[in-house]
Amino acid sequence: MNIAIMGHGVVGSGVAEIIHMHGENFAKKTKQESIDIKYILDLRTFPDSPYSDRFTTDFGKIVNDDSVKVVVETMGGLVPAFDYVKSCLEAGKHVVTSNKELVAAKGLELLRIAEEKGVNFLFEASVGGGIPIIRPINQCLSANEIDEIAGILNGTTNFILTKMFKEKMSFNDALKLAQDLGYAERNPAADVEGFDACRKICILASLSFGKHVYPEQVFTQGITQITEYDVEYAAVWGGVIKLIGRAKRMENGQISAMVTPAFIKNGSQLASVDDVFNAILVKGDAIGDVVFYGRGAGKLPTASAVVADVLDCINHMNKKKIFGWDAGYDGYVVDCLETETSFYVRAHAKGLSVSQASAAIENAFGKVRFLKKEGMPCGEIAFVTPVMAEGEINRILSEISEIEIVNKIHITDY
Amino acid sequence: MNIAIMGHGVVGSGVAEIIHMHGENFAKKTKQESIDIKYILDLRTFPDSPYSDRFTTDFGKIVNDDSVKVVVETMGGLVPAFDYVKSCLEAGKHVVTSNKELVAAKGLELLRIAEEKGVNFLFEASVGGGIPIIRPINQCLSANEIDEIAGILNGTTNFILTKMFKEKMSFNDALKLAQDLGYAERNPAADVEGFDACRKICILASLSFGKHVYPEQVFTQGITQITEYDVEYAAVWGGVIKLIGRAKRMENGQISAMVTPAFIKNGSQLASVDDVFNAILVKGDAIGDVVFYGRGAGKLPTASAVVADVLDCINHMNKKKIFGWDAGYDGYVVDCLETETSFYVRAHAKGLSVSQASAAIENAFGKVRFLKKEGMPCGEIAFVTPVMAEGEINRILSEISEIEIVNKIHITDY
Repeated sequence: MNIAIMGHGVVGSGVAEIIHMHGENFAKKTKQESIDIKYILDLRTFPDSPYSDRFTTDFGKIVNDDSVKVVVETMGGLVPAFDYVKSCLEAGKHVVTSNKELVAAKGLELLRIAEEKGVNFLFEASVGGGIPIIRPINQCLSANEIDEIAGILNGTTNFILTKMFKEKMSFNDALKLAQDLGYAERNPAADVEGFDACRKICILASLSFGKHVYPEQVFTQGITQITEYDVEYAAVWGGVIKLIGRAKRMENGQISAMVTPAFIKNGSQLASVDDVFNAILVKGDAIGDVVFYGRGAGKLPTASAVVADVLDCINHMNKKKIFGWDAGYDGYVVDCLETETSFYVRAHAKGLSVSQASAAIENAFGKVRFLKKEGMPCGEIAFVTPVMAEGEINRILSEISEIEIVNKIHITDY
Repeated sequence: MNIAIMGHGVVGSGVAEIIHMHGENFAKKTKQESIDIKYILDLRTFPDSPYSDRFTTDFGKIVNDDSVKVVVETMGGLVPAFDYVKSCLEAGKHVVTSNKELVAAKGLELLRIAEEKGVNFLFEASVGGGIPIIRPINQCLSANEIDEIAGILNGTTNFILTKMFKEKMSFNDALKLAQDLGYAERNPAADVEGFDACRKICILASLSFGKHVYPEQVFTQGITQITEYDVEYAAVWGGVIKLIGRAKRMENGQISAMVTPAFIKNGSQLASVDDVFNAILVKGDAIGDVVFYGRGAGKLPTASAVVADVLDCINHMNKKKIFGWDAGYDGYVVDCLETETSFYVRAHAKGLSVSQASAAIENAFGKVRFLKKEGMPCGEIAFVTPVMAEGEINRILSEISEIEIVNKIHITDY
């Protein structure tokens, strides 16, 4: 069985490494004579690789070689990954990818081509690194209607928030540490602005609810506005702040989907997920809550998920797995301002006493919970709003002229 | 597509309920015209069931009906479940079971028959109720060598231990509460003596390490000896006590496997698993630690796992899934006395002062960590031994004539 790998970066080189190490065992497991990496597509050369003679810069060699049955795409990005993957599927090759940007933006189109051609297009590694999540949702939970899915989907931001919580670091110090340790890029926007988590919740929502959700449909907010002061108020409230990607089935067939920092109660399975670990909570109608936890990134964890998909393709060489989703429609993902939630709000009393400002807040919202901590700056007020549509909360807040809003963070019931 | 259900108890009736509710959707998912329950085998009748006309007491009807392609076994126990399942497989029918006793005792034999006949024998629901664990280990983690597996596999004992820890209940009071709530049987031995957890770790170890492990090979100790005092010392140590089933690959190809109460560090993903929830930690060479968390029992969670297996059988009607393990050999599972570990020990000084007895303990073991709590009874000593073979610890303890051992509990590094 010949395979090809496109992109010899962190994940792609890990795939080659695992196959080099365990290839014989995998061949036995899948009843093949051998599993051979025939080509590795990369502009660079790697003279020390055991596959140094398989490197090519010519995609045509891969797509035109009928002996290559499974192609691994670990290049990342949309260009040229999308064209290459599309061409491979159209040529009747099975494709496995770890590229979340590709699946979130082009998954529907690629799944349709795979369906037409009777080949598999698998992407377990695109969410949660090596944590099994795509296949469990598709197969193990297939007897469930999934009602909701929520996860800590980005290890870099979780590392930063953990440092802010446990070691009282500022956001900037924690980010710098993450960069020094190689967890964050020099340009950390994809992580800290929530874009990476957004792509992952798109994939999970598409699979769980059966219609494609695109990143631009998902309200996305990162963690750059979170301060150590907010983290302290979260502790007073009884929890922690995590960057959460979540999607929920609404009664009318629509869904809500968003990525935001959020308060999570202590004792919840998501609250204890620290450092670079990820965890995904799935709520099914029969199963109740299930949580999947593990390393959401890293060379070997992610590569091992890619290789598991490759083995699955080999096992399903002539039988298409039943796997995919349909197109959505205008308005399928509701405006986040319509979703009901409660908020933590941190504000300053404008030129009047805290008790006068607090009275104005309760006058506008009804009874709220005020959060008090040691060493609160003069004039600072922190409180938790009732549950109502976010748009309504925003309207009420804008009308309380006695306070100036500093920060506002979702409160979840996970 | 016709199926049959053998046993209309908690799980079997849940399977019928889920298929009744979602059958059309399942048929669409599996590209079938319909999925029909043709027979339900039970000695009782259920006039209110939507399937009341499908009940039979005659197993022959099921095994001899060629239109029945998938048989669900939810009777429990070995007799007559084993004969019935064997006959169904021999008749070329796919079989799905939730029966952990059957898989732990007879899995190897039944998998071999399934292999010969080219049919599937699936049992996702036999471990962890509805938590996806068997298929993730077999498929998603297939690119990993699994080094170790450890889990909270029994919800009843976890509920009891949680009540002892959080509400300072005695074992007997917590057991009575579990019985009153329907979590524990009137005869609670299978749960509290660890037999249920033992069957589950046998199945997980067989699948993870590739050779059948039988319950009688696994050292099994329940929680009946755990007192609220031990739970308090665990808190002083910095953790909790959980009933843990675990299996580990040794360097020479052997494995260790046992079920015991054990100290688990706070902050570990297993420590925060409370009440009737289960969690299973899998350590793979590429992926690192992965944890699967959810409800380990209950009608609909367990039934939903059975139904997912049924759908998988329908999808693999003419293609045997690659799934199973081999026979073990004498000495494959090492004697637990050879495994290296450290222990918490609670003891009484025999007719001499605590400081004299403590000196004798350190004289025998070298430096140990003594645990101190408020209100320690006069003469009580609690300490943590160094890591060494359990047999060696037992030998040393038996030679310290200055103390009388009251309790001894494994300490893990999860």
